[in-house]
Amino acid sequence: MPNYIEPIEKLIRQLTKLPGVGSKTAQRYALTVLSMSDEEAKAFAEAVIDAKENVKICSVCGNYTDKDPCHICNTRDNSVICVVQEAKDVLAIERLGEYKGVYHVLGGVLNPLKGIGRDDLRFAELFKRLAGNVSEVILATDTSAEGEATATYIARYVKQYGVKVTRLAQGISIGSELQYADEVTLSRAFTNRKEL
Amino acid sequence: MPNYIEPIEKLIRQLTKLPGVGSKTAQRYALTVLSMSDEEAKAFAEAVIDAKENVKICSVCGNYTDKDPCHICNTRDNSVICVVQEAKDVLAIERLGEYKGVYHVLGGVLNPLKGIGRDDLRFAELFKRLAGNVSEVILATDTSAEGEATATYIARYVKQYGVKVTRLAQGISIGSELQYADEVTLSRAFTNRKEL
Repeated sequence: MPNYIEPIEKLIRQLTKLPGVGSKTAQRYALTVLSMSDEEAKAFAEAVIDAKENVKICSVCGNYTDKDPCHICNTRDNSVICVVQEAKDVLAIERLGEYKGVYHVLGGVLNPLKGIGRDDLRFAELFKRLAGNVSEVILATDTSAEGEATATYIARYVKQYGVKVTRLAQGISIGSELQYADEVTLSRAFTNRKEL
Repeated sequence: MPNYIEPIEKLIRQLTKLPGVGSKTAQRYALTVLSMSDEEAKAFAEAVIDAKENVKICSVCGNYTDKDPCHICNTRDNSVICVVQEAKDVLAIERLGEYKGVYHVLGGVLNPLKGIGRDDLRFAELFKRLAGNVSEVILATDTSAEGEATATYIARYVKQYGVKVTRLAQGISIGSELQYADEVTLSRAFTNRKEL
């Protein structure tokens, strides 16, 4: 089968490493890169290198940062810790502009099928933080089975320290129609119903 | 609004330069790049630079190449020229493995609204090739209005040289249902109907 010449093939192979990018999309991306000016392509490549070189993981919360500890750990209420799976979850919560506490990024969730156990996640770092002046741990892992299991595991441990543990409310999304809610969500919404 | 730190923001901005990539997708791509090992990220960035440095445009046909003239111009039947809009169209035809002639990449189509005229496309290079021993020019531009107009323009010029000009057949796609064919396609299929 005929192919692109080697440098283009190599670029396409690299671009398929991006999530959800197959060979057709990678091909489209590669041709866009080729149509860039030399300066544009250089800026593109340098952004990749710069990000890898300058972005560190905060040794306290595990979020991406350019200084350690990160600006959130340095400037915010350290007594409330919101536990999330990934760095992108931090951004989702920060967008609200409401939360005043700090974060703890686990780097994933417990998943025995994928061989992800306690030692693969930032559990030890979290539990070490409990020795400080922590009043509440908010569990904001996904509502997937693995996210739930991880939250349950952390909750059991944190409670031993006499620290308050909360989980983000689960129920029907705002603005969505009841008829389209999936069974698990609907059932959870019934269980967690609130008196008005 | 809270944002990622500067190196990540810069990477996200660069990634939105890829076609069809908005800020959400770019964010996902950026986090993937950050989770790569240093070696992987370097290989990724180098593929971009290498492609820009090593990929040239063939001075004869306008296709991407690493040597000039390209291997297609050098090894194939130069008497049949297939005219396409973009380099990716060459690959689509090459995938068939049937065509034995050479190509001419225009680099686009005539589009007065976008200010793309004759001098912006590789027309002069094409007409120069007609002085050689050319027996047929196959027009394989898109079936858009602009692609049609460009094909018509080239056909008129090429005929003056007494060279045979053909256009790829237009009609209902193989395997598609008649009821879903758009009106223009269906009308074209009627006009071009073949006696069996």
